Amino acid sequence: MMNNTMIVTQNDIENMDSRYRAHFVNCLSGFKSANLIGTCSKDGIDNLCIVSSVFHLGSHPPLLGMIMRPHTVPRDTLKNIKDTGQYTVNHVHAALFEQAHQSSARYPSEESEFAHLKLNPLRSSCMSAPFVAESHLRIALKVRDIVEIAANNTELIIGEVIEVNVPDHSVLEDGFIDLEALNTVTVSGLDSYHQTTCLDRLSYAKPDTPLTSIKK
Amino acid sequence: MMNNTMIVTQNDIENMDSRYRAHFVNCLSGFKSANLIGTCSKDGIDNLCIVSSVFHLGSHPPLLGMIMRPHTVPRDTLKNIKDTGQYTVNHVHAALFEQAHQSSARYPSEESEFAHLKLNPLRSSCMSAPFVAESHLRIALKVRDIVEIAANNTELIIGEVIEVNVPDHSVLEDGFIDLEALNTVTVSGLDSYHQTTCLDRLSYAKPDTPLTSIKK
Repeated sequence: MMNNTMIVTQNDIENMDSRYRAHFVNCLSGFKSANLIGTCSKDGIDNLCIVSSVFHLGSHPPLLGMIMRPHTVPRDTLKNIKDTGQYTVNHVHAALFEQAHQSSARYPSEESEFAHLKLNPLRSSCMSAPFVAESHLRIALKVRDIVEIAANNTELIIGEVIEVNVPDHSVLEDGFIDLEALNTVTVSGLDSYHQTTCLDRLSYAKPDTPLTSIKK
Repeated sequence: MMNNTMIVTQNDIENMDSRYRAHFVNCLSGFKSANLIGTCSKDGIDNLCIVSSVFHLGSHPPLLGMIMRPHTVPRDTLKNIKDTGQYTVNHVHAALFEQAHQSSARYPSEESEFAHLKLNPLRSSCMSAPFVAESHLRIALKVRDIVEIAANNTELIIGEVIEVNVPDHSVLEDGFIDLEALNTVTVSGLDSYHQTTCLDRLSYAKPDTPLTSIKK
């Protein structure tokens, strides 16, 4: 079944139709995170936008990275982050993915996506950027740094975690957060949403020592 | 069920035991990609290491990002990438995740993880870095740039896609790659592996236009 392997060269990719190429290349890295980014403009207008580009950057200090394209959607999100230095990251779960996907539509800047999507902003005591009340795992971040990526004119937003809201039943005794207990989804490509089933949690790997399951 | 929400502050995270913090913070971004990075040293020794830090950076040119910690595992991988300017990214599938996890053990630099893990290197005509023969989706990359991330002394490796090996049945007519047809897994935290089930693929979002399913 797997024996008809296509060899796709750099030249083949260059010659793809741009929409085909966007679908194809967006799948190459594997599964991605699904998060709603909550921001508030200087004028107090809330904004919400789904991104699949949030990634783990480091634990100590607790940092998340996020790639943004300055000249495409989500422009309001990037502007608000630069203007205010803060934003929230809200996990998308299985009952929320359609509303979350709809947030990528180009609504006018002066209209809040919360109203369009029938989602509720939730204020934190730590910042003005709104959480998504319906999300099960919510993170408030302050901008630590913005790095321009010269290779393709994107920007890497580096945020430091200021506050996490997480259901206590999902945090296991070793600190692991059971994302399946939260129904957090994952994304592939530009538009495909997936639920997960845990195969296993594996012990810390050492040479010549068999791995063991540490799944609770 | 979701109503006992813990509020975890920046100070709480700072005061966590370091291993607990590593588990907790590594879960915050959501699901991550699972890839084996193949490299070859200047002396011709193959190296293999699992990472969950590969992410989509852009489609045109086709670029993948990857975060590396210079002073921890995988040091050989980072050294080889810097010495040779090339590496491969190989999707981890459900029958491969235990071998893939074991690749994070600290084997001596002069020993190939391929032998230890009983995996087969596969040579491409385009570079010396080895593919993993058992992987279903393999990508050869050349280093485009290396960006130092001052916020936590990590390095962002930016690679340009030179070649992709992908089973033809998994590439749909719009360019989307069906990762579930390849059994590609996803990672949460440091050690949890997950299979996926597609909820839906959704049409391009526009204001005031209902989303439709585009799942084949």
